[in-house]
Amino acid sequence: MATKSFVDVDADSHFPLQNLPYGVFRIPNCAAEPRPGVAIGGLVLDLSVVASHGLFDGPILSNSDCFQQTSLNKFVGMGRPAWKEARATIQKLLSCDEPTLRDNSSLREKALLPMDSVEMVLPIVIGDYTDFYSSFYHAKNCGLMFRPDNPIPPNWFQLPIAYHGRASSVVISGSDIIRPKGQSHPVGKSPPHFGPTQKLDFELEMAAVVGPGNEPGKPMDVNEAENHIFGLVLMNDWSARDIQFWECMPLGPFLGKNFGTTISPWIVTLEALEEFACDAPNQDPRPLPYLTEKKSKNYDISLEVAIKPAGEEQSSVVTRSNLKHLYWTFSQQLAHHTINGCNLRPGDLLGTGTISGPVPESLGCLLELTLNGQKPISLNNNSTRKFLEDGDEVVFTGFGKGNGYKIGFGTCSGKVVPALP
Amino acid sequence: MATKSFVDVDADSHFPLQNLPYGVFRIPNCAAEPRPGVAIGGLVLDLSVVASHGLFDGPILSNSDCFQQTSLNKFVGMGRPAWKEARATIQKLLSCDEPTLRDNSSLREKALLPMDSVEMVLPIVIGDYTDFYSSFYHAKNCGLMFRPDNPIPPNWFQLPIAYHGRASSVVISGSDIIRPKGQSHPVGKSPPHFGPTQKLDFELEMAAVVGPGNEPGKPMDVNEAENHIFGLVLMNDWSARDIQFWECMPLGPFLGKNFGTTISPWIVTLEALEEFACDAPNQDPRPLPYLTEKKSKNYDISLEVAIKPAGEEQSSVVTRSNLKHLYWTFSQQLAHHTINGCNLRPGDLLGTGTISGPVPESLGCLLELTLNGQKPISLNNNSTRKFLEDGDEVVFTGFGKGNGYKIGFGTCSGKVVPALP
Ligand SMILES: [Ca+2]
Ligand SMILES: [Ca+2]
Ligand SMILES: [Mg+2]
Ligand SMILES: [Mg+2]
Ligand code: NI
Repeated sequence: MATKSFVDVDADSHFPLQNLPYGVFRIPNCAAEPRPGVAIGGLVLDLSVVASHGLFDGPILSNSDCFQQTSLNKFVGMGRPAWKEARATIQKLLSCDEPTLRDNSSLREKALLPMDSVEMVLPIVIGDYTDFYSSFYHAKNCGLMFRPDNPIPPNWFQLPIAYHGRASSVVISGSDIIRPKGQSHPVGKSPPHFGPTQKLDFELEMAAVVGPGNEPGKPMDVNEAENHIFGLVLMNDWSARDIQFWECMPLGPFLGKNFGTTISPWIVTLEALEEFACDAPNQDPRPLPYLTEKKSKNYDISLEVAIKPAGEEQSSVVTRSNLKHLYWTFSQQLAHHTINGCNLRPGDLLGTGTISGPVPESLGCLLELTLNGQKPISLNNNSTRKFLEDGDEVVFTGFGKGNGYKIGFGTCSGKVVPALP
Repeated sequence: MATKSFVDVDADSHFPLQNLPYGVFRIPNCAAEPRPGVAIGGLVLDLSVVASHGLFDGPILSNSDCFQQTSLNKFVGMGRPAWKEARATIQKLLSCDEPTLRDNSSLREKALLPMDSVEMVLPIVIGDYTDFYSSFYHAKNCGLMFRPDNPIPPNWFQLPIAYHGRASSVVISGSDIIRPKGQSHPVGKSPPHFGPTQKLDFELEMAAVVGPGNEPGKPMDVNEAENHIFGLVLMNDWSARDIQFWECMPLGPFLGKNFGTTISPWIVTLEALEEFACDAPNQDPRPLPYLTEKKSKNYDISLEVAIKPAGEEQSSVVTRSNLKHLYWTFSQQLAHHTINGCNLRPGDLLGTGTISGPVPESLGCLLELTLNGQKPISLNNNSTRKFLEDGDEVVFTGFGKGNGYKIGFGTCSGKVVPALP
């Protein structure tokens, strides 16, 4: 296989020929429906054009309308054989040795669009969104703050704890996040405090996009669960800590989370990430058989969070973490989610939970970085932050480092705007 | 308005001319798509036929395709003016004075189908499903069992506590429920117990079907929230107590709930229920302004749960409760759910939480009725139950009692089948 595209790709680009992540885009001010695309360097390959020109000529895709849809749900539901066929076709079409697109300027102009001329939309229709809690360091740090006697409850080591989030509030990178209002803990005998949250936070997460689902009542085998994952995105699970801590007893977080969750536009496939596979941490106690994997796999993906205050040119990196720190693997998350017969569907979104690492510079949210606002952090412009301020833009980036190239996720960003009056 | 239909309606029927609940049905073994219908006595009025014959002749519906859909989402999203127009048209068409259908036997045969010849399907595509916890008696009884020192946490009286449920697992009445497997609390130092749940329970609930939604960031006004509720259904939030109690710290219930939630097929509109409106309980402490209603309204709806063991002809009523016992109203639930800017969408499902009443015979789940299995209840066939057994069919019924008629919800039922091997 060729390793170079006829499209120019910077050494620093997240989107070389080895990546080929999927998204859905539209043309601003154009009536045409959104459609699937693949990123290559600074361009987007319009898969609806590729399909309508009969260039998906493999046995599975040649007669499919999966790229004539406004979301990727149909394609991701088709499973790994379809994904492999699509990847082979697209990689060939874009390679430097292949004349079909390279030497046909009119087709090339229709099929390859400058990334800055398109608007990315949510790549999937999300039927259900689940958020896990799978980083040991995050669980420990949060536990120490709020339950010092019992920082990590014993169930945490036996199962990947999770809760259901709100599908309607998942938004695409670039969407503003309106500061939520709500109740927070009363002082003494007075009524609860009410107003815009004073503890707005980000949570550095990644999320898996589910491919083929499972029938109600039929769990996924942990050793086969990988075939039910299409790919990964970056995810910011914005959180209002004061609202969350007052409401969460006894049924968990609700309004502290469901005002907005941002995902990156490009879904990077597990195929593209395979070269970054690494061993997951050792699990002690040993999990029950339904969670025991023949091979426990994480991915070495560098993650970074920067804050860009209103009016500033420069952003400040506030944390650097890595997906490989997760204690529970994606396969274990899927096996656990379905062990009771719960049915997953194509396009479901499974967040990892905040990905904190072992050192202070690798914590995945301000709650941890500032010890719940007790220890502000400094930004490049000499301002400090306990929690997010109006106008702050929070930018996540993530990539795996290959030999001479990066396989990246682009960015997952959002700006905090003031609460409505 | 006429109060009688030309269709024969038993005095005991749940579906007189005063009700007119909406559902979606299909014809078994028929290729045609599911379509909306309205129940009248023992018949179903096919709204796609009514529409295609131009009989929705009001200004809003005459040019709409809302009844040529496979779900009611489009119609419920159109709001109260459309609902009023539809109700007026249907009530007129079905009334004893109106010849259009009554005297046209070929049209009548196409438009009115015996209820036992159709199969009901989920009436809505549920984008998000939220479950509240709004019965004071349920919260108190559960709290006394597990947190005797602090049975009802102080936040309970300040806000309608809720958590997100799983939309994919909501099923229509009549669907079997496969006993879920999972982990439960370990004894001493041993690993967690694993196997089919030993504490399978029902939860007697009702649920609101959301009509028009709200824009992200823009809360619903509590005094206007009623316009965002299309109607109500019965709901059984099946629960596996052993799974739930082991997993729920600190993020709330997950696999203990998301293996199946059953709703009744007919959505009874708030218009039809208006005659059962009654005052909600007095709230002390007084809620914050965003939750303070000019008029706090509940509905007097009698609710009943029966268990029919495998092979038995007779079922045993195990509890009788009433929707009027809810502490937090539907309007308060919607105002709270959106106060942080969370966006609801047409067709979202909002469960009330288990509806327990003040007396022992009115408790809404076996957890309460049997004190977590310590005090079994007796059924008519002289068997006892701590929790549900395989083969048990659980049947909910509910209705409001009018003057000479019932406005009912039909039944919400499901049978427990053994866990898969
Ligand atoms: Ca999270
Ligand atoms: Ca419930
Ligand atoms: Mg969120
Ligand atoms: Mg349930
Ligand atoms: Ni409104």
